[in-house]
Amino acid sequence: MRKEFNTICKAVNGAGRILIATHTDPDGDAIGSMIALYILFKSLKRKVTMYCREKVPSIYSFLHHSKEIKNEPPKNTDFDVAIAVDCGDIKRLGRNINIRSHAKTLINIDHHPDNTKFGDVNYVRDISSVSEMIYELFGVFGIKINKEAATCLYTGIMTDTGNFRYDYTTPQTLRIAASLAENGANISRIAMTVYEAKTIPSLKILGAAMYRLESSDSGKVVWTVLNKDLIKAVGAKSEDLTGIVDQLRSIKGAEVAILFREEADEIKVNFRSKFNINVSAIAKKLGGGGHVKASGAIMHGNIEDVKNKVLSEVFKVIK
Amino acid sequence: MRKEFNTICKAVNGAGRILIATHTDPDGDAIGSMIALYILFKSLKRKVTMYCREKVPSIYSFLHHSKEIKNEPPKNTDFDVAIAVDCGDIKRLGRNINIRSHAKTLINIDHHPDNTKFGDVNYVRDISSVSEMIYELFGVFGIKINKEAATCLYTGIMTDTGNFRYDYTTPQTLRIAASLAENGANISRIAMTVYEAKTIPSLKILGAAMYRLESSDSGKVVWTVLNKDLIKAVGAKSEDLTGIVDQLRSIKGAEVAILFREEADEIKVNFRSKFNINVSAIAKKLGGGGHVKASGAIMHGNIEDVKNKVLSEVFKVIK
Repeated sequence: MRKEFNTICKAVNGAGRILIATHTDPDGDAIGSMIALYILFKSLKRKVTMYCREKVPSIYSFLHHSKEIKNEPPKNTDFDVAIAVDCGDIKRLGRNINIRSHAKTLINIDHHPDNTKFGDVNYVRDISSVSEMIYELFGVFGIKINKEAATCLYTGIMTDTGNFRYDYTTPQTLRIAASLAENGANISRIAMTVYEAKTIPSLKILGAAMYRLESSDSGKVVWTVLNKDLIKAVGAKSEDLTGIVDQLRSIKGAEVAILFREEADEIKVNFRSKFNINVSAIAKKLGGGGHVKASGAIMHGNIEDVKNKVLSEVFKVIK
Repeated sequence: MRKEFNTICKAVNGAGRILIATHTDPDGDAIGSMIALYILFKSLKRKVTMYCREKVPSIYSFLHHSKEIKNEPPKNTDFDVAIAVDCGDIKRLGRNINIRSHAKTLINIDHHPDNTKFGDVNYVRDISSVSEMIYELFGVFGIKINKEAATCLYTGIMTDTGNFRYDYTTPQTLRIAASLAENGANISRIAMTVYEAKTIPSLKILGAAMYRLESSDSGKVVWTVLNKDLIKAVGAKSEDLTGIVDQLRSIKGAEVAILFREEADEIKVNFRSKFNINVSAIAKKLGGGGHVKASGAIMHGNIEDVKNKVLSEVFKVIK
């Protein structure tokens, strides 16, 4: 670690202009760690530019300096250092930017275990979040973490650990969170802002989905059907339907969860599995695809027929 | 604090038989702190009995010694010390037990700010959880927290802080959680066990609550009503209803969330507030109590009448 810290220090100490970039569809850790790094370098009197392909999601717009993130690649190519944060692969920055063309030195700061080590300097650790890494960088540079940076880093750690629930939440993660709270991160306000900004239609459609859930006799397969009329009645948008199938999976004993969503003239079928069932294989049989534990298919016809067809495929594997 | 610690030490040092009791409808902090205290006293070679009116909710049955909690008041009245944990008022123990009749000395260990100081010794602090207080008691007695006690205390802190989200989650709370993880509490396993083992009735009643939610014109007050028939129809138990009011509060713009639960011949009213509204004051006016952001009252009568009465009190403060 010390070696990478030294290399980063050396590169930054000689740099007047720094570009920081993070991945497409940014999450709390991407935004939080990037802005914290921005604050760190600004307090070292560097000129810093931040880039991300998309606008900051509204739940993170309360973070200071979030408006200063550019969504277009910078024109100038004379940065001394470019830093990619939270990217396991350089492609995660999106096609719009060729980050190598902007700077002499590329630093890769990331926490994905399958990181491709694409930088000239690679500071990669298998820990909860990049924000946890940036917390330590403040110490390396001897800069006190101010309230704004603490808020960014706390947000990054909180979101990337699923609010301190995933199994890379270590005692050190909790101690860093404690220290950030002492430096001004408002624990409850950050949690409320990020997690408690649901819309009424999104909760109503979630409610309808849960209230109407069905299950196989064993309880291993659970599903729910949301038809067009119901979705329309509560005023839910397509984005309000994401996450419902994950809630279904949280049932004790459920191995496969299925959500049927009738939207326009098609029926979207979302699959989740908990342990051993490969729902990607099931989705493929139905003309869809995806990952082992999260997959989907788009089907057509009467929703009852679609449901029966899908369930009969699922029941071949687990009932 | 030191004075209360000394008094507790003195009382316990002279006690051969100890009764510990916690409140009706026990939550993670009630069960977790009671069992941790049991482990502490057992390791001090005391005879210890635990009492709670209800059975341990199934999500907490993974806690060691949870089966040793009695649901009937003990026959014997010769305890040296009785300890009520997590009870703001002696009535919270339920009508079945008259705890004063069982022991010479009554110790009240609690974290509700409106605690009535009903004990001979009152160790009351305005912090996250009783579990956080019991953590410190282990230090006072010089007993190392073993894995079982760490798991109980972590569970209590995690659940009473809404998984480290409520505003009495302090840096010290997070540091204690870190230390408990080092003593053997498995962060992700505890979170998974408590939060991802939902029963079908619990999701159905949550669904019904969300689907039927109502709000004031401004969206600042949101509420939902669960009547007896609905609760019965989905097969939900009382424990399945906890947490619903927190989900209600997660609506963007909602400042106060209210859940009306018709159970047996009473109507439980649960309040949550997000930022500035003191729902403890509202609950007090209705004969209840609790915390600034989480409170409750038990009321009687027709559910529509109760709803209107409660809403008219709430609307005096926020509409």
